[in-house]
Amino acid sequence: MASALNDTEVRLGHGSGGAMMKRLIDNLFLEEFGDEAALPGDDAGVVPLGAGRIAMSTDSFVVTPQFFPGGNIGRVAVCGTVNDVATSGAQVAYLSCGFILEEGYPIDRLRQIATTMAKTASEAGVKIITGDTKVVERGKADGVFINTAGVGLVPPGVDLSGTHCRPGDVVLLSGTLGDHGIAIVSQREGLSFSTTVESDAAPLNRMISSVLAAAPHARCFRDPTRGGLASTLNEFAEASGVDILVREADVPVRDQVRGACDMLGYDVFQVANEGKIVAVVPADEADAALAAMRADRYGADAAIIGEVQAPSIEGGHTVRLETPFGSRRILDMLVGEQLPRIC
Amino acid sequence: MASALNDTEVRLGHGSGGAMMKRLIDNLFLEEFGDEAALPGDDAGVVPLGAGRIAMSTDSFVVTPQFFPGGNIGRVAVCGTVNDVATSGAQVAYLSCGFILEEGYPIDRLRQIATTMAKTASEAGVKIITGDTKVVERGKADGVFINTAGVGLVPPGVDLSGTHCRPGDVVLLSGTLGDHGIAIVSQREGLSFSTTVESDAAPLNRMISSVLAAAPHARCFRDPTRGGLASTLNEFAEASGVDILVREADVPVRDQVRGACDMLGYDVFQVANEGKIVAVVPADEADAALAAMRADRYGADAAIIGEVQAPSIEGGHTVRLETPFGSRRILDMLVGEQLPRIC
Repeated sequence: MASALNDTEVRLGHGSGGAMMKRLIDNLFLEEFGDEAALPGDDAGVVPLGAGRIAMSTDSFVVTPQFFPGGNIGRVAVCGTVNDVATSGAQVAYLSCGFILEEGYPIDRLRQIATTMAKTASEAGVKIITGDTKVVERGKADGVFINTAGVGLVPPGVDLSGTHCRPGDVVLLSGTLGDHGIAIVSQREGLSFSTTVESDAAPLNRMISSVLAAAPHARCFRDPTRGGLASTLNEFAEASGVDILVREADVPVRDQVRGACDMLGYDVFQVANEGKIVAVVPADEADAALAAMRADRYGADAAIIGEVQAPSIEGGHTVRLETPFGSRRILDMLVGEQLPRIC
Repeated sequence: MASALNDTEVRLGHGSGGAMMKRLIDNLFLEEFGDEAALPGDDAGVVPLGAGRIAMSTDSFVVTPQFFPGGNIGRVAVCGTVNDVATSGAQVAYLSCGFILEEGYPIDRLRQIATTMAKTASEAGVKIITGDTKVVERGKADGVFINTAGVGLVPPGVDLSGTHCRPGDVVLLSGTLGDHGIAIVSQREGLSFSTTVESDAAPLNRMISSVLAAAPHARCFRDPTRGGLASTLNEFAEASGVDILVREADVPVRDQVRGACDMLGYDVFQVANEGKIVAVVPADEADAALAAMRADRYGADAAIIGEVQAPSIEGGHTVRLETPFGSRRILDMLVGEQLPRIC
């Protein structure tokens, strides 16, 4: 049997491929993620999957700080990839998980992160079936970076893409905007509000499945993470060659988030979210899609926020925001970097 | 259309989720990896795959330096994961690819790495179908870290595992030991030999398929990377509850690698390889397996190096090396770290 993990800090030997690494894997990662596919200790997890098309996605997570109100890097690492795979309409099934650790990182924090990942994977109904651990010297990374990749089977007939938006389609948002970004920046900068803003990080694969069942002709889903809602809508508009109009008054934003954005000079439409989904559906399926979102535990504040329009300029693809006063402004994609290392 | 990528260095905005990141993806990654599955710009690649069992594996790569004789981090990043998936007997089909970049990393080096990844993936017959880019501030990473995850379909009836070794089985090694580790340390320490030692990094999925066709009852394959051959054989011995005997005289090692190990005090059995495979096969399939290895472009120096034996101690699992003088020593798993950041 593997000997106990007595170290309190990550050491270079934990990435060696030898006995120390085996102790870390056996006593920490396998204890948290333990799955029959991973248990023989082989280099690849082998698991059943039906025939057809698979969806695959990956994200590396470098968020700082690693612990923040509403979660930690482990929750974001599972949710981010689960949500990316789910936006294809796939039934997300399996995750891989690669850690890059900085020498000296506290083992108890690493365990908390792994525990959170296991819980979040369980909540999402996905299994972590294979992993990797690398360790770099002090000063060559920043605590812990996590990569996850995910795969799932796309049901027959499902064909979702940002290229599928059509004039007349309706744009839905599954909840309040900007919570994750403001939670991170508040923690980082030591800001305090009357109420703590918590990260919204959440697995949305079940919500997407419900919406797809309710709105079978849905065009596309996307989680507005880095770059926020503005980037997501501009991506859709460009990919489909359409304009999109968003009514600002219909976009749910918490008061504290709005206040923090005003104070910090952020545009809430460009702030990252980790537990929200944007959906574009045909107009005659919009009410059903909205009801499905609202029925989900993470969708209580879902709203119809805008519509797809024919391009106002030949070959153009403009996203506009209609303010509560009726004026319109262009909602641009973020240029440069507003808030680094948000996920 | 996307505007040109005029930057010469990675900037924080290249990881923003906004317009700068889109420029980097469109002008560098999609140009190199461009695939119909990735082209619509959606968050997940959607690709066909047959029914049955999939194998999935992941590795993060932090090798330093990033460029070395015989390759760069990009070649290792593709080969490492292709080989890990292939050891399950799967037909490796798809890779994901996640970059963590340090602000200031030269764009032309990043492009060289991406070009190498694309070429290596093409050589292996696999497609990079989805990716991610994160950027961290100067001093918070070390140039470039790459994660790849891979998936493939395991043919019906194939069941390879380190737990399957049986007394009487034969151990094969597909070529010379230690080339990758010595290439890296030579580059890092500025050592020079009469002939340059090149990294052996290579995709071995075709070789494994050939060996499996020639030796259909093969027990297991593994690429002896971190921890070297010693770790791989100890993992097999422990997983199967067997002893393994290796005949040192039969293990191919280049003269320069042997010399470098002597000079540096390394045990060549613990030095990392990135283009070698260890196979355990039943004795009556060993010659066929060896012939299949040698027929592969990366297997010219393949050899039968040892055999699986019943445990000499009840419940034990000892790996022994028989020296050319007939004495035997225990071949232990590496403890701690010999040579950090080899892959």
